[in-house]
Amino acid sequence: MSGKFAVGVDYYPEQWPEERWATDAALMRDAGFNVVRLAEFAWVKLEPALGEFDFDWLDRAIETLSAHGLEVILGTPTATMPAWVMAGDSSIYRMSSDGRAATFGHRRGYCPHHAGYRRHAERIVRAMASQYANHPAVIGWQIDNEFGDRSYSAVAQTAFQAWLERKYGSLEAMNEAWGAVFWSQTYTAWSEIPVPLDTGGPHNPGLALDFARFSSDGYVSFQREQLEIVRAACPNHFVTHNLMGFGYDQIDYFDLASDLDFVTWDNYPRMWWNVYAGDDAARAALGHATMRGLKRQNFWVMEQQAGAGGWQMVVPHPRPGELRLWAYQAIAHGADGIVFFRFRTARHGTEQYWHGLLEHDGTVGRRYLEAKQFGLELQRIGAQIAGSVAKSSVVLLHDYDSRFALQIQPNNPELQYATQFAHWYSALHRRNVGADISSSTDDLSAYSLVIAPLLHVVTPEAAANLEHFVQGGGTLVLTARSGVKDGSNAVVNEALPGLLRDLAGVRVTEYDSLIGSSNGLRFDPNTVLDAADVTVNIWCDLLEPSGADVLARYTGGFYAGAAAITRNQVGRGSVIYVGAIGDAALPETLLEWLLAAQTAAKLETNQLEITERWQGETRLRFYLNHSADPQSVALGGQATSLLTGDAVSGILKLEGYGVEILTD
Amino acid sequence: MSGKFAVGVDYYPEQWPEERWATDAALMRDAGFNVVRLAEFAWVKLEPALGEFDFDWLDRAIETLSAHGLEVILGTPTATMPAWVMAGDSSIYRMSSDGRAATFGHRRGYCPHHAGYRRHAERIVRAMASQYANHPAVIGWQIDNEFGDRSYSAVAQTAFQAWLERKYGSLEAMNEAWGAVFWSQTYTAWSEIPVPLDTGGPHNPGLALDFARFSSDGYVSFQREQLEIVRAACPNHFVTHNLMGFGYDQIDYFDLASDLDFVTWDNYPRMWWNVYAGDDAARAALGHATMRGLKRQNFWVMEQQAGAGGWQMVVPHPRPGELRLWAYQAIAHGADGIVFFRFRTARHGTEQYWHGLLEHDGTVGRRYLEAKQFGLELQRIGAQIAGSVAKSSVVLLHDYDSRFALQIQPNNPELQYATQFAHWYSALHRRNVGADISSSTDDLSAYSLVIAPLLHVVTPEAAANLEHFVQGGGTLVLTARSGVKDGSNAVVNEALPGLLRDLAGVRVTEYDSLIGSSNGLRFDPNTVLDAADVTVNIWCDLLEPSGADVLARYTGGFYAGAAAITRNQVGRGSVIYVGAIGDAALPETLLEWLLAAQTAAKLETNQLEITERWQGETRLRFYLNHSADPQSVALGGQATSLLTGDAVSGILKLEGYGVEILTD
Amino acid sequence: MSGKFAVGVDYYPEQWPEERWATDAALMRDAGFNVVRLAEFAWVKLEPALGEFDFDWLDRAIETLSAHGLEVILGTPTATMPAWVMAGDSSIYRMSSDGRAATFGHRRGYCPHHAGYRRHAERIVRAMASQYANHPAVIGWQIDNEFGDRSYSAVAQTAFQAWLERKYGSLEAMNEAWGAVFWSQTYTAWSEIPVPLDTGGPHNPGLALDFARFSSDGYVSFQREQLEIVRAACPNHFVTHNLMGFGYDQIDYFDLASDLDFVTWDNYPRMWWNVYAGDDAARAALGHATMRGLKRQNFWVMEQQAGAGGWQMVVPHPRPGELRLWAYQAIAHGADGIVFFRFRTARHGTEQYWHGLLEHDGTVGRRYLEAKQFGLELQRIGAQIAGSVAKSSVVLLHDYDSRFALQIQPNNPELQYATQFAHWYSALHRRNVGADISSSTDDLSAYSLVIAPLLHVVTPEAAANLEHFVQGGGTLVLTARSGVKDGSNAVVNEALPGLLRDLAGVRVTEYDSLIGSSNGLRFDPNTVLDAADVTVNIWCDLLEPSGADVLARYTGGFYAGAAAITRNQVGRGSVIYVGAIGDAALPETLLEWLLAAQTAAKLETNQLEITERWQGETRLRFYLNHSADPQSVALGGQATSLLTGDAVSGILKLEGYGVEILTD
Repeated sequence: MSGKFAVGVDYYPEQWPEERWATDAALMRDAGFNVVRLAEFAWVKLEPALGEFDFDWLDRAIETLSAHGLEVILGTPTATMPAWVMAGDSSIYRMSSDGRAATFGHRRGYCPHHAGYRRHAERIVRAMASQYANHPAVIGWQIDNEFGDRSYSAVAQTAFQAWLERKYGSLEAMNEAWGAVFWSQTYTAWSEIPVPLDTGGPHNPGLALDFARFSSDGYVSFQREQLEIVRAACPNHFVTHNLMGFGYDQIDYFDLASDLDFVTWDNYPRMWWNVYAGDDAARAALGHATMRGLKRQNFWVMEQQAGAGGWQMVVPHPRPGELRLWAYQAIAHGADGIVFFRFRTARHGTEQYWHGLLEHDGTVGRRYLEAKQFGLELQRIGAQIAGSVAKSSVVLLHDYDSRFALQIQPNNPELQYATQFAHWYSALHRRNVGADISSSTDDLSAYSLVIAPLLHVVTPEAAANLEHFVQGGGTLVLTARSGVKDGSNAVVNEALPGLLRDLAGVRVTEYDSLIGSSNGLRFDPNTVLDAADVTVNIWCDLLEPSGADVLARYTGGFYAGAAAITRNQVGRGSVIYVGAIGDAALPETLLEWLLAAQTAAKLETNQLEITERWQGETRLRFYLNHSADPQSVALGGQATSLLTGDAVSGILKLEGYGVEILTD
Repeated sequence: MSGKFAVGVDYYPEQWPEERWATDAALMRDAGFNVVRLAEFAWVKLEPALGEFDFDWLDRAIETLSAHGLEVILGTPTATMPAWVMAGDSSIYRMSSDGRAATFGHRRGYCPHHAGYRRHAERIVRAMASQYANHPAVIGWQIDNEFGDRSYSAVAQTAFQAWLERKYGSLEAMNEAWGAVFWSQTYTAWSEIPVPLDTGGPHNPGLALDFARFSSDGYVSFQREQLEIVRAACPNHFVTHNLMGFGYDQIDYFDLASDLDFVTWDNYPRMWWNVYAGDDAARAALGHATMRGLKRQNFWVMEQQAGAGGWQMVVPHPRPGELRLWAYQAIAHGADGIVFFRFRTARHGTEQYWHGLLEHDGTVGRRYLEAKQFGLELQRIGAQIAGSVAKSSVVLLHDYDSRFALQIQPNNPELQYATQFAHWYSALHRRNVGADISSSTDDLSAYSLVIAPLLHVVTPEAAANLEHFVQGGGTLVLTARSGVKDGSNAVVNEALPGLLRDLAGVRVTEYDSLIGSSNGLRFDPNTVLDAADVTVNIWCDLLEPSGADVLARYTGGFYAGAAAITRNQVGRGSVIYVGAIGDAALPETLLEWLLAAQTAAKLETNQLEITERWQGETRLRFYLNHSADPQSVALGGQATSLLTGDAVSGILKLEGYGVEILTD
Repeated sequence: MSGKFAVGVDYYPEQWPEERWATDAALMRDAGFNVVRLAEFAWVKLEPALGEFDFDWLDRAIETLSAHGLEVILGTPTATMPAWVMAGDSSIYRMSSDGRAATFGHRRGYCPHHAGYRRHAERIVRAMASQYANHPAVIGWQIDNEFGDRSYSAVAQTAFQAWLERKYGSLEAMNEAWGAVFWSQTYTAWSEIPVPLDTGGPHNPGLALDFARFSSDGYVSFQREQLEIVRAACPNHFVTHNLMGFGYDQIDYFDLASDLDFVTWDNYPRMWWNVYAGDDAARAALGHATMRGLKRQNFWVMEQQAGAGGWQMVVPHPRPGELRLWAYQAIAHGADGIVFFRFRTARHGTEQYWHGLLEHDGTVGRRYLEAKQFGLELQRIGAQIAGSVAKSSVVLLHDYDSRFALQIQPNNPELQYATQFAHWYSALHRRNVGADISSSTDDLSAYSLVIAPLLHVVTPEAAANLEHFVQGGGTLVLTARSGVKDGSNAVVNEALPGLLRDLAGVRVTEYDSLIGSSNGLRFDPNTVLDAADVTVNIWCDLLEPSGADVLARYTGGFYAGAAAITRNQVGRGSVIYVGAIGDAALPETLLEWLLAAQTAAKLETNQLEITERWQGETRLRFYLNHSADPQSVALGGQATSLLTGDAVSGILKLEGYGVEILTD
């Protein structure tokens, strides 16, 4: 990562007349940009026929951009392969779980396990890396683009069988781990093992979880193959990949990130999937925190929304101010680089309505001007921000094995891992309590509060890590459906919550999956937790405490009076077991109480997001107004605006979609 | 069927360590169980490779169980074939109507018409039958498991063509029956005939009905092949199959049952498909009555719900008392055996959340204890119940041809055979009027009232049977959409209701399929039927009586005043033709009147189900409280509790989910 | 087209016993019918085996009908091919966009691009044409039946590649037009080009639009091949095809119609797709106007609804009077022939519930009697109507390229071309303002008002045609999303509305796609347009006038006050640009104002439709009561009823579903 703060755009010179390039470069420079990502979808322009490379046009484009002061990140173009690649071998196509193979005309249509495709990728990546290893304007690489979905093709099936053989060594071990004798599925040859296609019904949970891991590994290893080529050729360049935030759940991002120099991701706060849900600043914040946690370091946004998204449909444009606000929000959560996607809106192709900073006709409108304001600001203040870090005392544990297992068996129609996780994160965010996101085996010693929603699959290592944390004085929050599965996705052979049972000090005697019904929780006013009743409608564990205190009991049904939430003192710390699952109300109630019990100041300021980054001893405070209306907040003392250099005290006023950054 | 009452469990010793077997067997014995079903999904354990059999483990398991006093029913394991079978011939896979072949990893993935698969099945069944023919602990066999869905594979297509050739003899006869000249579909070779895949649009109704019959016959003949092997080897064992109640509509269960010694079925009162609909004791009752009617004899429940069902999702557990209540309900409707599914909840495989009596970890909880209470009760009272029979004066006619035909052409988006049938059955059940369920060609002389909902396909034999019943003094209820089709699924070449027209004494001059609209029915207060108006929203026949009296007329639209319901005196009996179809209100209204006109006492006791079985001259009265709250019912005289031996009179009080059985 | 008015039925003698034919012919004659369509689905009866023809039965059928005074239209039977054709070559089957091939048992299962199928079609058409070229009873031909959907088969793919090569000449030109470099899709061989199957995601818009055109051309050229055979053999017969009105959007009907002598279409006012929407006389009227506009001449209805439609489900029958009313409505909009579908309701096949005039059993009911009343009326008055023409001063421009482009990219989930078009047409229809429908390049000089909804793809020719019209004094109404695309489906390289920008005198500075939100429009009371606010919920263009007056401005959001509707004076005419899109309210408001500004009398008579046709100087006024209740309308002066010959003046009273035709 270069020392300065990176601001720039994703640019596709191959899509525009060469005479236009200098105009575009000048517009970038004038906007204060210093980096540009190139070539990630340009394979057919770089290799028009097998082994025939043409880098001249890209050389000229880089020259033009470099002449305007821009540094270049190159994308390896393996997300969109030329038609001639696929015409030569249709077995490369990815197959969906419904058994249908992809066809040409989209992107990400390849099966990542396909050896022939990897040889194609190796050839183009090797050629590019060799061409630009010593180019002075090139600073780094993005491998592929938004690694994608699972492939169920025949090629994937063979690769899965080989992966299983490596993992288990023997069919006996695999059959035993999966309990394959169920429904007579004991395999007698590796070649008999299927991939979990949809056709017919749900599969053995052990097989399905292994397939999810294998699928994730396929992208990790494909990335590693490219990365090793680039690193060998270009030791001075960084290498990254653009991930897809918290929402994407087909790849274990801890694994994918481990091989990268740093993480970048693609941040689109307003898309179809959230226009209908209503915009919510916590959603993008959760994405940023997730990305920051993958390597416990700062990240870049490699694609920052520059306008309305849209393929067949057009999403509403960012309102005036939002484009800049969203870029600052990324910074407020740990970004050291912001690259807008894309520079000019495409006139052709599937993404005609995925709007860039410039209009279709290349003219300048309010989106470019707003990005320019941001770019010029960062020219001034970027160095003071770059490299500063967030410091959190709260962490949420994000576990892809548990997420995969609950994809396979959701337990209840209303139970989604992502939704429940977001309820906990949002309750923190609403109070402006900064939170990190880690894996269940990361070092947790820096935190006072660990929240582990739906830790469904628990390994002995994770259980030991959590016990170590609690023994050391920390507070751990567990939920129902934790500790249910072992690493083979078998139900544990002991009472729930399995390996966490002694730590939690409770036994689940029975559970009630709520289908079209609900139950109530009443908090015990004699304990520390005094709150109004909460209704839940997804799941109720009936708890039998063995040493734990009861914080809440059920109010209805045949188990009225049974324990629902408990707290167990362990060593110097404690474990809260939340046996009921519903909507956001329960995390809200519990965190209101837990945070009051901690020292964190309560800063509940609706739609006014406040975060901190620390540059050494200097604190940077970010104030982000996510509403169209002006908002005010009382400041604790004297401060200085990083944006204006003015002294600020008393009441800070922010205009609609306004931003302020203060140093003490 | 053995003389004593059978109580037991479905057990999978192959899924648990052998050291555990004796513990499980002791728990079964302690619960009062006397039978256990084994091996139905164990093919790969019994034949790990082609022709290599291993019965040792099963011998040992039977020995252990037998040593604890349990008798054994063996399942032929053909519902789940080993992976090595399928690896050898992928043409075995069943194909769905959408053209997708099944893949490995589920159950019931085979095409029942596949000759090669039948040879595999023959081999394993022959080996098992030979192994256990003289085993003293083995008492009977279950063929396969829950015979399943239609197959549209190429193998099925060839078999269908051969089936048609056998049925019709000539293409001319088949083309004529189907009216295949429509849309130029006249076939000129048997090999041209398709199976009715979804691709493209709806098929010729004659072809589609024949395909439904052929598909049903495929399972019937597959069962017969296995059954003949077992019968030849094990003449002292009974042979049965576990059917799926009233709801399953892909196989003509009268045909399937005809080859069995007795019928068993799988009874899950609380599953997805009824959790959302709300539980309803009439639903399970309808299943029991349907099964009892197939051979007009008592039946077993081979899988009685033992806990929450669930594959990917978990269904709510039976509430305390319900597990026992549901078992008694089965008995109240004619069961002579109750086998709980399953003994211990599986830790592996698709059915991890299809809960058994024991928990995942093998411990005992409230479900085992409740089953134990039931098992010990039956140890005491079972002999007094086994073999006693229901006696009904009312019968509903269940016609699979009509059901298949209305699958193919529902006539109206809201018209479902099963729903309409259930409306009539439920109206009887709500009044605690016991009802049988028979086919339209069964002997009806024992009944005073025959209800034939949606008798859409009518053969001359059925019409003659109904006329004979009415002439003899019976009351017959017919509905709209009866007599519409001949045996070739052609619309009859005469006015509706076709072959039933003279019997009903009405002609349908026109019909109105109600789409988003409704009409009213007004009963004629001058006739015997005096009731409030009823609204219907599915179908209206406009009737022209020829001798029949008009019981109700339409109130709206251009046919206001037209006859809607008529009654025709025929011989010593009468025929009610109900020309309108709506929701449950119309059957309720009509049965309220019809039953009042009969001698049956009205026992409208909400959620308190009352049935009778007769052991020779002794009447057993069953009282089942399907609510969580206590209920009371006034008894006619002195009685004795079979459960407690106590004398009972006056008011019988039942606790929530409580059960009582009285003898006079 | 014969000089007299044609009234008749579609008849399938091959489906009924030959002894019945004379009875049917007599019933037709008695109903006043003079034409009958035959043989369109009878291929296998005419050619039972390859090259073996059997015309004897058809000769006899024609003889029988002819003997009863009926003239014959023959359908070429290529919509339903014999099973033996498909058994010989399964590559003929059409493939859906989901990649599934059709199977036998339906109709229209062929891929129209298949050369082998076209040779089959050529053989049967040549044989039929030769057989009946000189038959005195035969007057014309219908080619195939309801040409259908797009095919994505391998055969279609090869044909598409050849079509593209013919169109573009070089891959370079095609890649350039499509901007195929986007996502690395540049093609290096014609054989690499895919068809836009659904598998994987949306395709390049340029490719997708060309595929839609290619698919349309496939049917046009297949029709032309048949038509040339028929014309060569039967120079005295007319040749037509039965189209599917306004609603069908897979074929460019202007192209398809251009080769025909005249257009016929299949008019079913009450079907599934409108029963749920509520009946609306404007819907059928729009279909008639669309068909009349294709060749700017009168048309026939080749299939006029004769009863309830229905395949698996039954639609409500026409109420008493509606069958006749709908036939007169067709005439009121320019029909010179009415052929009822079908004569007798089929007893067999998919269309068992697609009711004809006779019942299933061949008896006569109210539908036949109503058609007979109509037929006898037309016997008297048909000659006075046939050939008379509509005269409109308003025209709507119907553009299939725009419609296809918006299928590919709807822009907004609520934006449908057909719905928006219908809003404008319905607002005219509700006021009984007759309107024509033309293409954007037709001569517009006869009109004073041109409405061009969603003219999304604009060619220079269309733009010039519109400017010519406006310069000449006409008023042109344009809407948002006009001029967005060039002929390659690329976004234009200039500000919107692109080629129409100077004409409209506005520039679109930004747009807002409304997702779950809305905005208001306020009309400027100082301009001519004084109306209440209108809310829109689909799309808002923000307009910057360059010479145009502002008629309305937005009331909400960050662009409150921005121009929404403008009027530009150009030459002697003017252009209204309607920048907002919502529901029917905006077209209603604007046409209320525009029509008041014109001379057209306002005739807002709810559910009473009034149209005119002119027989030379004689005006025929049609009054159609689409409600079940009587309605009245004040007449301007003395008139004569064409139906009764009576003089009429003052108030014209129409009974429910009643019809009147007046001459001045």
